[in-house]
Amino acid sequence: MALQVFGHKSPDTDSTGSPLIWAWYLNEVQGVEAEAVLLGEPNTEAAFVVEKWGFEKPAIKTEFEAGTAAVIVDTNNPAELPDNINELDVQAIIDHHKLVGGLETKGPIDITVRPLACTATIMYDLMGDDAAKMPDNIKGLMLSCILSDTLEFRSPTTTDHDKALAEKLAAELNIDLGTYASEMFAAKSDVSAFSDAELIRMDSKEYAVDGVKFRVSVLETTAPEIPLNRKASLMETYATVQAEDGVDQVLLFVVDILKEEATLLVPNDVVKGVAEKSFGATVDGDSVVLPGIMSRKKQIIPNLKV
Amino acid sequence: MALQVFGHKSPDTDSTGSPLIWAWYLNEVQGVEAEAVLLGEPNTEAAFVVEKWGFEKPAIKTEFEAGTAAVIVDTNNPAELPDNINELDVQAIIDHHKLVGGLETKGPIDITVRPLACTATIMYDLMGDDAAKMPDNIKGLMLSCILSDTLEFRSPTTTDHDKALAEKLAAELNIDLGTYASEMFAAKSDVSAFSDAELIRMDSKEYAVDGVKFRVSVLETTAPEIPLNRKASLMETYATVQAEDGVDQVLLFVVDILKEEATLLVPNDVVKGVAEKSFGATVDGDSVVLPGIMSRKKQIIPNLKV
Repeated sequence: MALQVFGHKSPDTDSTGSPLIWAWYLNEVQGVEAEAVLLGEPNTEAAFVVEKWGFEKPAIKTEFEAGTAAVIVDTNNPAELPDNINELDVQAIIDHHKLVGGLETKGPIDITVRPLACTATIMYDLMGDDAAKMPDNIKGLMLSCILSDTLEFRSPTTTDHDKALAEKLAAELNIDLGTYASEMFAAKSDVSAFSDAELIRMDSKEYAVDGVKFRVSVLETTAPEIPLNRKASLMETYATVQAEDGVDQVLLFVVDILKEEATLLVPNDVVKGVAEKSFGATVDGDSVVLPGIMSRKKQIIPNLKV
Repeated sequence: MALQVFGHKSPDTDSTGSPLIWAWYLNEVQGVEAEAVLLGEPNTEAAFVVEKWGFEKPAIKTEFEAGTAAVIVDTNNPAELPDNINELDVQAIIDHHKLVGGLETKGPIDITVRPLACTATIMYDLMGDDAAKMPDNIKGLMLSCILSDTLEFRSPTTTDHDKALAEKLAAELNIDLGTYASEMFAAKSDVSAFSDAELIRMDSKEYAVDGVKFRVSVLETTAPEIPLNRKASLMETYATVQAEDGVDQVLLFVVDILKEEATLLVPNDVVKGVAEKSFGATVDGDSVVLPGIMSRKKQIIPNLKV
């Protein structure tokens, strides 16, 4: 079987595009037979990007036999990977998240983690001179990953290196970066078809703070009214999600990409306390606007207090 | 305080030289104030190398305040690092061992793990064009790290890349690689001054197999008779080491660098079983010669069975 290249279980653009980019590199440059796969349904932006650049949607696989050769991208968190991940033959990890501990490998492998906004940017660096061999559709994926993870350079995770690479790729592809980013964000914002539980779990990570287990969900959108109009129904669904996923609280942040602010839904006093202690917010009602908050990684998780 | 750069608790040449190399790079090329430190007394080969290339022996530190900025080299194993390692501000990890899981970082950092023989080789690659700025004493350390970890290219961990780099450095330094390696190995073999417990713990890692906790110790030497003449006394000391370190068994391999074989001491039927099941050996007496066995990482640990 071809080497399996996959990201995390909630495939956004970086976790969908990066496996395709790296599988291209392995197949076409390294001469290693590789296949990009997804661990779940891609979000609407990722689906748009895949189609836009003329790729077939990668196969969705949730189970892998022990010993399967694999490359992990865009995560190092076992909770976001197949249950038997430590039984796979993981040959490389390329990621830009904090090390959470828990992944183990049977021997020394290639691991590259960099504090960049986007996995695809790290891949560009790893390719070295071979990056010049990228065809337009791979460049398009790479550009899309960067625009998505940086929210078109608005997120504080953005580095000069990510930005310069995106601008170079857009120039080579002869496309207008702002227009294309708007198309991507419109696709991401088109979430009407999803159930409340699907919205809560769409871009969500679990974190424990002082023994309280949170599901920290982020909806990045240029149309915040779509989820916010469903506020009451979303919060009613928290109990079900908490019970099914074994977490104590849900924190749902609706990130307005253009206004550069987040709205946190406040269903109870615990979340109210989190909003006040973590972000210095004054909460009055069932939601609170947090100006400037855009990044779970840089702004939400590091500040989370109960 | 300067950024602290350190390897593991049993500093061999790579774990002593690599912090010095990286601290040089950070100070002189990156402009980041950095200090190489050791987590324990360097072994005799490492001490020889440090003096040979004109360095002061780095300070030995075993405790670090929470929040101390640090770079970890040549390990990713919390058991080989300060107890409070996850409270330090770890900014980078450069390593060539399998991922054991357990290290956590507060944010995304630089992590580079490569399946090369030696940490110093990875550092050369990370430096890129700046490697040309290395002064002779840094080149000398780098050469020493490669010769030590590859046992002068005899270990199966050796890659073409490690070997080519060592040969290039020896040529630039105008030293005879074979002669210098012999000097290093003679220094490593000069272990008469150490107590039995010190010898057992000198180059030792803990691994659990099927619930049995082993201390897997390796003595690489060109003078195997020095430790082997103390066989009985060494095995008598196992009980003390096991009790103090909380392990069930000690496996002590005396690796004859020149003959490319290991002698495993066999104090009891458990270790006898390990020798038979792991290496297909026929054990008769209190030790057994294992032809070709030189690498804990590549040959001992992956094959360990109880």
